[in-house]
Amino acid sequence: MADHTSRTRRRGEELIKAIHDAVLEEVVAVGVGRLTMDGIGRRAATPRTTLYRRWSDPTEVLLDALYHQHPVEEPTPSADDLRGDLIRALRLMVDWALSPAGRAVAAILTDPKSVALISEALFDRVFADRGGTFTATVLHHYAAQGHFPTDRLTPVVTDIGEALVTKRLIDTGTPPTDEDLAAIVDQAILPALGLDPRA
Amino acid sequence: MADHTSRTRRRGEELIKAIHDAVLEEVVAVGVGRLTMDGIGRRAATPRTTLYRRWSDPTEVLLDALYHQHPVEEPTPSADDLRGDLIRALRLMVDWALSPAGRAVAAILTDPKSVALISEALFDRVFADRGGTFTATVLHHYAAQGHFPTDRLTPVVTDIGEALVTKRLIDTGTPPTDEDLAAIVDQAILPALGLDPRA
Repeated sequence: MADHTSRTRRRGEELIKAIHDAVLEEVVAVGVGRLTMDGIGRRAATPRTTLYRRWSDPTEVLLDALYHQHPVEEPTPSADDLRGDLIRALRLMVDWALSPAGRAVAAILTDPKSVALISEALFDRVFADRGGTFTATVLHHYAAQGHFPTDRLTPVVTDIGEALVTKRLIDTGTPPTDEDLAAIVDQAILPALGLDPRA
Repeated sequence: MADHTSRTRRRGEELIKAIHDAVLEEVVAVGVGRLTMDGIGRRAATPRTTLYRRWSDPTEVLLDALYHQHPVEEPTPSADDLRGDLIRALRLMVDWALSPAGRAVAAILTDPKSVALISEALFDRVFADRGGTFTATVLHHYAAQGHFPTDRLTPVVTDIGEALVTKRLIDTGTPPTDEDLAAIVDQAILPALGLDPRA
């Protein structure tokens, strides 16, 4: 049970984190179109006036929360492990997809009403600013090292891993295992780079 | 405007089609958990008693509608055009995804409450009975003709095209063009079969 005394003392990062968590829960519950400062404030046990000090409207709270809770993949520096780094990037995506931020994004993208309200800002201000899709950073790193020709990195190819993980999550509702992710890398991503391990 | 006299005269296939259309609209509007014979009947302008003559409950009406409106891809008989048949299979998928049946399936699969109620029956009685994913029939046909080894047809590989089309529909909300579908075939599916057109 939250204690009111400690709650009112929250400051700075702790308070912002509580508000971010609240808006991610609220959007899953009501959709973007029905987000309000009151609703977010109620979930965060914070007065609406506090929210208006930092954000101009509920959508700004949401975009700020998604931006801050978006993971950024990093290729292991100086390692030479394309396959392992791709598997790790997809694991990072699965962990994110099942987190409150990932569930909020899924709720937004699969609700036609929400998409119309926020989709462009979501792609411009969250996904693009945070480095695009999960495998893209890894793929560009290894292309720059000469592991495969850069012109292999088309929009289709940088989407393959994320697309297969998304379809699996939609179809089964259960997170893929490490073996499932390795199969995606070996059977779909690497062949598309011209690095077919079975060829 | 529908005319009541003609409406009450609907029989056989015409009436069933109207009820199928009604249940697909109703599930998008209210979700599987709130489907009722009354709601379906209201949309179809048909008394509930008529529905109970053929179906035991609203979920059965829904599964029957999805089964009958699910497209079945066929490789062009005696043609030797793997690439063209894959593009056509993905086009069939896009057309279906944007149809009332496809929109109903998307609404079911992206709503955690609906998924729990019907997902297993959807996969067993609609998708599997209707031949699995859209590219699968084409891929198995050409594998049997010796175009590539059958053991290339893993669950990951038969999902690549559908996964990329699904991600694109979720991300952009707009249907892929024929060039987009050709890029998916050339840059992702064919390489995974060991038939990389760029190798």
